[in-house]
Amino acid sequence: MVNMILDLDTGIDDAMALAYAVSNPEINLIGVTCTYGNVKTADGGRNALNLLGMMHADSIPVYLGQEHAFHKGPFTPSPVSQRIHGENGVANRDIVQTTKKPETQDAVDFLIESIHTLKQDLTIVTTGPLTNVATALQKDPSIKDHIGKVVVMGGALTVPGNVNEFCEANIHQDPIAAHFVCTSGIDVTIVPLDVTQRSLLTTDHTKQWRETGTELGKTYAAMVEYYISQHIHNVPFTCFIHDPSVAICAVYPHLFTTLPLNVKVITTGISEGRLTGDPDRLYDEHPQTKVCIGVDSKKLVPHLHTTLMKLFERIT
Amino acid sequence: MVNMILDLDTGIDDAMALAYAVSNPEINLIGVTCTYGNVKTADGGRNALNLLGMMHADSIPVYLGQEHAFHKGPFTPSPVSQRIHGENGVANRDIVQTTKKPETQDAVDFLIESIHTLKQDLTIVTTGPLTNVATALQKDPSIKDHIGKVVVMGGALTVPGNVNEFCEANIHQDPIAAHFVCTSGIDVTIVPLDVTQRSLLTTDHTKQWRETGTELGKTYAAMVEYYISQHIHNVPFTCFIHDPSVAICAVYPHLFTTLPLNVKVITTGISEGRLTGDPDRLYDEHPQTKVCIGVDSKKLVPHLHTTLMKLFERIT
Repeated sequence: MVNMILDLDTGIDDAMALAYAVSNPEINLIGVTCTYGNVKTADGGRNALNLLGMMHADSIPVYLGQEHAFHKGPFTPSPVSQRIHGENGVANRDIVQTTKKPETQDAVDFLIESIHTLKQDLTIVTTGPLTNVATALQKDPSIKDHIGKVVVMGGALTVPGNVNEFCEANIHQDPIAAHFVCTSGIDVTIVPLDVTQRSLLTTDHTKQWRETGTELGKTYAAMVEYYISQHIHNVPFTCFIHDPSVAICAVYPHLFTTLPLNVKVITTGISEGRLTGDPDRLYDEHPQTKVCIGVDSKKLVPHLHTTLMKLFERIT
Repeated sequence: MVNMILDLDTGIDDAMALAYAVSNPEINLIGVTCTYGNVKTADGGRNALNLLGMMHADSIPVYLGQEHAFHKGPFTPSPVSQRIHGENGVANRDIVQTTKKPETQDAVDFLIESIHTLKQDLTIVTTGPLTNVATALQKDPSIKDHIGKVVVMGGALTVPGNVNEFCEANIHQDPIAAHFVCTSGIDVTIVPLDVTQRSLLTTDHTKQWRETGTELGKTYAAMVEYYISQHIHNVPFTCFIHDPSVAICAVYPHLFTTLPLNVKVITTGISEGRLTGDPDRLYDEHPQTKVCIGVDSKKLVPHLHTTLMKLFERIT
């Protein structure tokens, strides 16, 4: 059983990661911390609360975190994010609203408190910029000695980026926070585009979600079909599996091939936001970070589909 | 026994690869083809002939190849190459001159002829730009069906480049040739900076070469000490093992961890000359290229040193 905090900027693939974590009995989801990225922090929090409500999982607390990057001003989602996830982050759909509110405790404080309580028995899974985790490390540096695993969706190491040819969106949003986390000495596993782009969901999957006939199944089918329709790549009627991959990696690391590599993030210049190996720390025999460079997609994709189906069938 | 052609732009680390191939009894060096890069093609040819002469290996033929990149004009070595390898490519030393001349046959024709003769039993090892190999593939496309392994020193996949933050020098010299070779469907193993920068030669090694007391040992010690003195990185009195690594990889691939990955080379824009994974061919179950991303340096470095020592001690 993995005690997990999901740190989400809840757009559509974050919503899949959330449903996956709720459905998988190997995951004990102790809370959702919210960040900005696909949407503003408060909007992502509202999406997470509404989706948890639909899943009959209101007991999972939701905490609002940082609202913009280190050294950047107020955040507004990019036109590309608004197109891919919809302006509201959930495909512009009116999903069922909950009356439940976010917790009053700040996401950063919840992270710090949970690390002190659970120590090595906590896995933090991030699907957005690393601002919340970096802020927690800066606010209470003592957590470095207790923190378990941090599993990060972000970066593009052996393939081009998706913001530009060098950079992936999450790391690009807050390069300073990402560099801080990746060089802090904590146990970080990075799940970059290198692997998330190798796994594809298709409209064959979403069709089965819809055929469950449940409101949840139909909502997820519609959201992901919208997301697929906005995907521009060379395999039609499919989308990459970004955020669910990182939740899966946290529980089943053996599905991934990892490269032990000390990494850094470029924080200035034309490749600002690029994740790359740190040439000054190549000789370290025990690199602090691991980067996923291969994935058993033939197992990952059906596992994700089956896990989501179980939830969609169960919640009526 | 590996039948090998070395395609060299003979500067100092190429000179080490050459001595390694001559010394290793597992390698049958059937010829050296010359290209431009560290020096002009003719100068590299002269260096290779002189060094082979010093090694009492004049029977190995040397062929001159292409003199500049596809789509580029006449080649002049960069100031950086002139500094690192010396203006003459051999640390500005007056090495013993041979009277032997390059073969009259062109390097490209020798490559084509050798591939037709030896087929899968030939390994081509390149330490410079891929212009000769690309030209051979264009001149006689039928060799694609017969060619054995091509093992390429070049690129920077998981670490920054050495020409700029994206590009390694060999691929950067002729991106079009590199892209052509890497996407031609032939069996290519890439030995990039990711691994060559993990293996270090030190002045402790060169001291032992000098102490052999032979002209060859003293010459190589002096050349590599010059090369070390021009190395700007964070481990003093050492140099990276670029070109010898690719010759070693051709014979002992098990010393390297490889990532099967279809790659491409960026041929335009600010990252012209960057080697990266091809996102459009990520789903291919049998990638055509392999990239070395890990190396057992603890075995590679002493193996290189011991192999060179045997030659330096033997040739008086």
